This record gives sequence, structure tokens and C-alpha cells, in this order.
Amino acid sequence: MSAAAARNRQILLVEKPAGKLGHEHFRLVEGEIPAPADGQLLVKVLIVSLDAANRAWMQAATYRSEISAGAVMAGGALAEVIESRAPGFAPGDLVFADAGWQEYAVIDAGAATRYPRAEPLTHLISLYAIPGLTAWTGLLKVGRPRAGETVAVSAAAGSVGSLVGQIAKIHGCRVVGVAGGREKCEWLERELGFDAAVDYRAADFHRALKAATPGGVDIYFDNVGGDVLEAMLFRMNLGGRIVCCGAVSQYDTASPRGVRGVPGLIVVRRLRMEGFIVSDFDAERETAIADLRRWVAEGRLKVQEDILHGVEQLPGALIGLLAGENRGKRMVIVAQPATPAG
Amino acid sequence: MSAAAARNRQILLVEKPAGKLGHEHFRLVEGEIPAPADGQLLVKVLIVSLDAANRAWMQAATYRSEISAGAVMAGGALAEVIESRAPGFAPGDLVFADAGWQEYAVIDAGAATRYPRAEPLTHLISLYAIPGLTAWTGLLKVGRPRAGETVAVSAAAGSVGSLVGQIAKIHGCRVVGVAGGREKCEWLERELGFDAAVDYRAADFHRALKAATPGGVDIYFDNVGGDVLEAMLFRMNLGGRIVCCGAVSQYDTASPRGVRGVPGLIVVRRLRMEGFIVSDFDAERETAIADLRRWVAEGRLKVQEDILHGVEQLPGALIGLLAGENRGKRMVIVAQPATPAG
Repeated sequence: MSAAAARNRQILLVEKPAGKLGHEHFRLVEGEIPAPADGQLLVKVLIVSLDAANRAWMQAATYRSEISAGAVMAGGALAEVIESRAPGFAPGDLVFADAGWQEYAVIDAGAATRYPRAEPLTHLISLYAIPGLTAWTGLLKVGRPRAGETVAVSAAAGSVGSLVGQIAKIHGCRVVGVAGGREKCEWLERELGFDAAVDYRAADFHRALKAATPGGVDIYFDNVGGDVLEAMLFRMNLGGRIVCCGAVSQYDTASPRGVRGVPGLIVVRRLRMEGFIVSDFDAERETAIADLRRWVAEGRLKVQEDILHGVEQLPGALIGLLAGENRGKRMVIVAQPATPAG
Repeated sequence: MSAAAARNRQILLVEKPAGKLGHEHFRLVEGEIPAPADGQLLVKVLIVSLDAANRAWMQAATYRSEISAGAVMAGGALAEVIESRAPGFAPGDLVFADAGWQEYAVIDAGAATRYPRAEPLTHLISLYAIPGLTAWTGLLKVGRPRAGETVAVSAAAGSVGSLVGQIAKIHGCRVVGVAGGREKCEWLERELGFDAAVDYRAADFHRALKAATPGGVDIYFDNVGGDVLEAMLFRMNLGGRIVCCGAVSQYDTASPRGVRGVPGLIVVRRLRMEGFIVSDFDAERETAIADLRRWVAEGRLKVQEDILHGVEQLPGALIGLLAGENRGKRMVIVAQPATPAG
């Protein structure tokens, strides 16, 4: 196998950050290409998904076990099977798995999800995997929007937020995005059809948010927690719903802050605040994918991708994501598939 | 009418507290007995209900309009109609209304709820009105317990909490109460059948809470917010529900604090945190009252009342309630009904 002759470039998490994540926490090394045991697959990593949750994994207490210092950095990736020692998988198959930040990985077949080929391949990361399913599930199954309601979403220019806003528009809602910087806000209004977008970094954020939500907010899809969540609590209408999807403002810090207005405003305004995980809604997966595919085909859903190239770009890609520099789904293309598409 | 010759002792809220509520914020005055206009009732106040929410009304932004300084202090009360200028009401009728802290009041008939006579009359305040309906609705309709689950409740020795715990036991749950002081905790375990009770004032509160909830918490019925809510968030099981009923720890202060773990733990543990108001569940009212009545008759539900006498006791009754000195439903009997029961 020619791949066996190749080196395996890997990114280690050499130290867990106490405060802000930086380049000093990672190191690029060259490792061996490992051999699969029975029930395992050797895969070639094609595209690594960058997610704010990657940073949360370095803290204790997430749904994933904590990442160890000194190990290859974890990360969800689209990969191609090179060698299979598990029934049902063959070389050339595409899978999604936590293959980590490296060029080759051995994974347990039971932890790999087979993906169909798609054109472009990047849509498997940006739309039909976590971001699309998260946006669809969180908004429609947890938030349960009704036409005419106002939906607000934070990290609105991000992979999930940009889809949430567009899906809410498709369902007849008024949509207000919160994003960092005037440029992203203008993009949300002009390109993605948001009714309004508010810059949370601006000095007049609270006033601007109020002005953008004259009738209050019925559903707030929260990707960030912290100050924006607190501000939004005070804009919620009676019976409002807060979809708790993430808390990115609290991941890259040693001292997460408390949110005022909890539980006072939850009581007084009879709010429902609810977390979820996409895998709880596996029964809806095919419906979600069919909806997403149809909306894209109809031109009603724009998929924004933020693509970097090369395994060595991974640390900077995550650090930048946490600083909010991406627009849409950030991913790093590590390699092209050996087996042609089609 | 003989009542017209009487004086009307009233408690004014002379100043809104900036920090802790004290006797200096109230004044006892003697006013006129007012005359009802068309559509109104003159009522004699029999029993005033003391509720932590009375304190929250002095802050901005509750479901009730803010109380004005200089006015008679607001408060829900059981009252007897003395004179009716509204169709459908006659002298001797019992009503529940925001009659305020005074001996006589004129109220709009539309804001009065007719109550049937009951024996004892105090059960109309402690069980069949707000506390009982709140406990029943919040636990069963918002929390939705399943047999075998662990239910935790704060202010567990209070009017709502003491009922919540007992109703959870009736539904086959393991029940852990949080209350202030060892004496209350022992009472909850010995008299009300709680499986465990934890003193939030004790230095080892966090350790004791952990020990009392070895399998985590599935439903937390939160009456207090603040530190206890924060501690409980870290005890919640996946898919747990937090019923947001009140935030008494945050009412009697000028600087409410934020709650850490929100939204991080809500996301990671897929929690649902939900506020409610009993009036949203009016359709269930008769079912609730029938359940409560049956459980009391069967000896499965103990109703604890904390009764003071005389309108002049009202300020101290509320101040003490906020300090947690009551056990069960606190109320002040202002007068006996003119019309005998039966």
C-alpha cells in the first residue's frame, strides 16, 4: 500500500490551555501510519471540521470525555477508508468519525458513520452533518417556531447560526442575527436575508438590539451564552423559548461568568430554556437532510463555507474560529480522496 | 351597615426598599372604609396570604405591575363580601382577590375569584389556592415526573416546597429537600416523608447535596435561584428538568447575582429549564383541586400552616418569610367571617 510509505503528520495538544487557546498549546509532529486491528479501519483524513466545541472538550464536563494533553487533538472529520478490517466497510468508502487532527487514523468501525458521496464534498461537513442537523433540529424541534414570530440567533454568521436564520425565514419568521463586526452584520442582511443584524462588539449593542426587536423575541437560538444571552433574556416575550446550543463565549476562558436574569426572568416571563443534542433526534435525520437538500436546490438556503488547506493550518483555524474570524462553516481540507467522486 | 362605623386599619408601603426589606418601609394608618361603585364589591379581609412574590413586586419587571410607594401594600387575600354592587355577588360570599394589607377593601368584581366555603377556612389559602395549584402544576405539568426519578426541591419547608415533595412521593419519586437549618430538614424527613433533606446554610452544603443525590437529580423544583440553583445545576442528570417557580434568594437584595453553569450545563446535559404561571393551566384547575382534596383525605398529603393574627403583624410576617422563618404556608388572619361557615 503506497500510503504506508507516507508519513503521518499529526497535531498534538501538548498542553491544555488555562486561559486563552494559542499556538503554543499545539505541536506538529510526524508519526507512523498505524495498522488497523480486527474491527478497525485505517482512514485517510480528507476534511476536518472546526467547531467551537473542540475548545470546550479541553475543559471538563462536556458530553465528550476530556481531551488529554500530549495526545493527537480530537476532531470530527470526513475520511476515506484505506484499509478495512471490519465487515461492511471497503476501501474508498467515505466515513465521518473523530479521526483527530492528523493525515491518517485508525478508528473503530463502530464509531464511524458512513456518508454518501456528495457534490461538493464539503457539503458533507457544512450542511448534511452537524451544522445543518443542529440548526434544523434546534430551531424546529426545540424552538418550534410559528410564522410571524421573531427569532434571534447569535453567532449568526457562523456555521449553525447562518442556517438557523435562513431556516427561520423559510418558516415565515422575522429574523434578527447577532454577530461580531459591522461587516458580518451587513452580509447577514444583504446576502442571507436576515431582517436585521446587530453587532455585539459595538458600544451601543443593547440599544441596537432593542431597536432591532421592537416586538420582543419569541425564540432565541443561543450559540454563545454570556453577555449576549443575558441581554437577550431581557428582550424575551412571554412564553419565549431559548434554544441552548452552545456557549462559545465561555469556552476560551478560565473564568466563565454567571448569567443574571436566571431564573428571575424565566419565572416571570414563563420562558423555556432547553439544551439538546442532535443524536437525540436520530429518528428525524432523514427528514432533516431531505429538507436541507430541497431548500438548497430551491435556492432558499445558502451554504457559506470557510475553507483552509493543510493539516498545519488546524491550530490557527480553531484559534481564529474562537476569535470569530470565520464566516460560515470553517473546515480544513487535509487531502483529496484517492477514489474519484461519482 | 355596621362596618361603615368601623375604622379601616391599613399597612402602607411608605418607601420601596433599596436593599433588605425592614419594618421602616411600612406604616400602619387608619383610613376610611371606602364605598363601592358600580361593578365593585366592598369586602372584609379575612386572611392575607404572605408570599415571597410580595417582595418581588417591589422590584421592577414581574408579572404584576410594580407596587407604588405610599400606597396600601398589595397582597392576595381571602375576603368576605360586605356590600355588592356587582351582579352575581352577594354579602357573605367568599372571594380571593388582591385586597391588600388592610381590614376593608373595595375591589372590582372582575378581579375577584369566588371561593367555596371550606373547613378549615385556612385551607383555601394553604392548599386550594396558589400554593397547592403551583405545586401540582409545576411538578406534574412542567416537571413531568416518572416513578423512580429523583426530585429535588428548594424552600422545601415552605408552602409550595412542602407540597411539591409530598406530591413527588405520591408519584413514586425519590425526594430530596433543600431548606434552611437542621430543624427544618429533620421535620421534612420525619414528618413529611422526604428521603433526605439538606441544609443550604451549612458549611458542607455542596458535599451534603452530593451525598443526598448519589444518582443525580432528574427534576429540580426551584423556588430560590442563586447559589442553590447553581449547586443543583451541577447535580442534574442528562435530560433533567428545572421547574422555575421562584427566585426568593434574589428578591430581597439590590444586587441579584448571576448563575454560573448557564447555559453551559443546559447544553451539555440537555436540560430543560422552564418557568410557568398557574393561570396558564386554568383548564386543569378542577383536576388539581380534586387530587389535592383526595390526597389530604387519604392522609397522604400533610398541609402545614404558619398562622399569625392581626393586620399589624403583616410587615413582620413578610420580613420573617424572606428570612426563612416560616414552616409551611404563612398567612395572617385579619378577621373572622361575619357569616358563619356551612
